[in-house]
Amino acid sequence: MTYPAPHPASGRHRREARALLARKTKPPGSLGRLEWLAAELCAIQHQVPPRTAKRRVIVFAGDHGIVAEGTSAYPPEVTAQMVGNFAAGGAAINVLARHAGAELEVVDVGVASALRDGLALDRKVRQGAHNFARQSALDGVEVGRAVAVGVERATAAKEAGVDVLALGEMGIGNTASAAALLSLLTGAAAEETVGRGTGLDDRQLARKREVIAGAVARHRRFVRTPFDALCAVGGLEISALVGAILGAASCRVPVVIDGFICTVAALVAARLAPLSREAMLFAHRSAEAGHALALGALGATPLLDLEMRLGEGSGAALALHLIEASARILREMASFDQAGVGTAVE
Amino acid sequence: MTYPAPHPASGRHRREARALLARKTKPPGSLGRLEWLAAELCAIQHQVPPRTAKRRVIVFAGDHGIVAEGTSAYPPEVTAQMVGNFAAGGAAINVLARHAGAELEVVDVGVASALRDGLALDRKVRQGAHNFARQSALDGVEVGRAVAVGVERATAAKEAGVDVLALGEMGIGNTASAAALLSLLTGAAAEETVGRGTGLDDRQLARKREVIAGAVARHRRFVRTPFDALCAVGGLEISALVGAILGAASCRVPVVIDGFICTVAALVAARLAPLSREAMLFAHRSAEAGHALALGALGATPLLDLEMRLGEGSGAALALHLIEASARILREMASFDQAGVGTAVE
Repeated sequence: MTYPAPHPASGRHRREARALLARKTKPPGSLGRLEWLAAELCAIQHQVPPRTAKRRVIVFAGDHGIVAEGTSAYPPEVTAQMVGNFAAGGAAINVLARHAGAELEVVDVGVASALRDGLALDRKVRQGAHNFARQSALDGVEVGRAVAVGVERATAAKEAGVDVLALGEMGIGNTASAAALLSLLTGAAAEETVGRGTGLDDRQLARKREVIAGAVARHRRFVRTPFDALCAVGGLEISALVGAILGAASCRVPVVIDGFICTVAALVAARLAPLSREAMLFAHRSAEAGHALALGALGATPLLDLEMRLGEGSGAALALHLIEASARILREMASFDQAGVGTAVE
Repeated sequence: MTYPAPHPASGRHRREARALLARKTKPPGSLGRLEWLAAELCAIQHQVPPRTAKRRVIVFAGDHGIVAEGTSAYPPEVTAQMVGNFAAGGAAINVLARHAGAELEVVDVGVASALRDGLALDRKVRQGAHNFARQSALDGVEVGRAVAVGVERATAAKEAGVDVLALGEMGIGNTASAAALLSLLTGAAAEETVGRGTGLDDRQLARKREVIAGAVARHRRFVRTPFDALCAVGGLEISALVGAILGAASCRVPVVIDGFICTVAALVAARLAPLSREAMLFAHRSAEAGHALALGALGATPLLDLEMRLGEGSGAALALHLIEASARILREMASFDQAGVGTAVE
C-alpha cells in the first residue's frame, strides 16, 4: 500500500523560534526542555509562534485473539466495557482529556463484539485480530484498511482545525501484540520486549514471554517489511495508530505519542516513512518493560516519567499541558527590550 | 525564635484515598505517581477527595551582597527589574501561573533598591543581605522577621481559601547563598553544592566555588543551628521561603517546592521542624548542580525533570497541573461498579 508522505520539519522555523526564545526575560536555555519543545512545535507546524488552542485525543480500540493464550490479566470483554466507560465519561482518559482542554474521539477499529450505537465512531475492520500464536493476526487487506482509518481520522482532525493531536489505545491483549512487533522490528528477545501489561504476576509473565517468543520465532521468517510485521502479530488499533501518525505527519500536525503500544506503532511508522519521526513528540516513559527499548530505537526522550502504565492516551493527554505551556512561553513572555530588564554581564 | 508547629499528614486519609483509587476503572497502580500524589494530597489536607480549586504561587524577592564577589552572571539591578516584569505580567512565572490557573503574589522581603508602589507586596526587612564572604549575611532579628513574613503569607493564603501553595524566588546571587547554606547543613564541599546559576562559564564557576568554599570555612565554626546558617550565609527571600513552608505545613496546605533554592529552604525547614517535610511536594529536578544533593538530603523524588533552572517558581507552577490532574482522577473517575467494567481475572 502507499502511505501519505510525511512533511519534514522546518529548520528555518526552528531557528526563528530559538532566536525569539533567546530574547525572552530569562537566562538563555533556562527553561530547558520547554524551550526545545516550543521550537519543535514551530518546526513541525512551519510557523512561529505555534498554535495549540485546539487539541484532540484519539483513542483507537481493538481486540486480540492472543488473549486465548492467557497473556492478559483482564478478560477480553473489558475492551468493549471500557469503550462504554469512555462514552460515559468515567475513564482516566476522559478525566485527563478534560483536564488538558482536549476533545476526545474514540474509534472502534476492531472491538470483538458489536458495540451499541453511539459508543464510538464505527470504523470496525473486523471483530478483533486472530490469535497470532496460531496464525497471522491480520491479512494485508485488513491492516491496510486499519491504517487507512488512522490516516482518515488524522486528516479529519486537521480539517477540523486541530493544532495538536494526542494518540491512545484500548485493547485487552495489546501489550502482547506490541511486544511481538517490537521483537520482530528490532530483533530483541521476548525477555526484553514483554512486560507485565496491566498486571501479570511472575508465573503469568513467564507464560506470556514463552508465548511471544514462540510466535515471533514462527513468524520471523515470513516477515520482510514493517507492514508484514503488522499482519503477522499486530492489531487493528495498532495499525490505525500507525496510520494516524503518518496522517498527522503529512499535514504538519504535531502528534503526541503515549506509552508502550503507541511508541511501538510510532516505530512502525518511522520504519515505513522515516520523515514521520520529525512530527512525533513523546509524552512519557511508561513503566512497561519494553518501552525503554522502543524509545531507544526511535532516539526519543519523553517529557514525563511518572511510572504510569495505563494506556488510553493518558500520558499523552497529561503531556499536552507541557506542550501548551511551551507554546505560551513563546507567545506571551516579554523580551528584555520590552521589559527593560538587563541582560547577562559580558 | 519559635516556629509554627507543622501538622502531621494523616495516615487514615492516605489509606482511604488508596482504597478509593483501587476501585477506579484502571489496573491497580497503573497511574503510577499520579496515584501517589492524589493520596499525599489527601493525607496533607486530612480530607478525601482533596481540594485543589484555588492555587497560589508566592514569589519572594531579595538581593545578595555576595554578588560583589562576581558570583552571578547578571547584575544585581535585575532583581528589581524582574519584580517590575512580574508586575507587568511578562515573566515566565506570569505565563506559567496563568497556565496553571493560579494566582501570583510577589513579596519584596529584601530587594536592594526602593521599588515603585504597587510592584510587589512590601514586606522589606532590609535592602539585601550583606556580602557573606566578608560578614554575616543577616542578623538574627532580620532572619526572624523574614521567616515571619513567610509564615504570614502562608497563613494569609490559607485564610483566603488557597488549597495548594506553590513557592518561588527571585534574587540575583541566591544560588550562591543556597549553595553555602547547603554546604553548612550537609557538610558537602563547594564542588558539590555550587553550580552555574543563571549561566556562569568555567572560569566564573571556579571563582564562585572558591568564594563559597572560603566563606563556608570561615562561618562554619560559628554555626550551631539551621537558624545560625540562615544568619551566616542565607538570604531574606530564602528565610521567607522557610517561613512559608512552615506556615503551610502548620495549616494543612500542600506546599509545592520549586528548584534548587526552594529545596534548600525546604531542607532548612525540615531541620527546624522535621514534620514539615510531610506537607512538601517536590516539583522538578533542576539542572543546577547542587539540587540532586538537596533532594537526596530530603529523600525527595520530584515530579518533573525538564532540565529547567530558571527559578521564580516556574517548575512549581508547572507541577500544579499534575497535582490538579491527580486530584481530578480521585474526584472524577468512575469505579468498576459504577461503570460495569470487569476486574482482573483471579
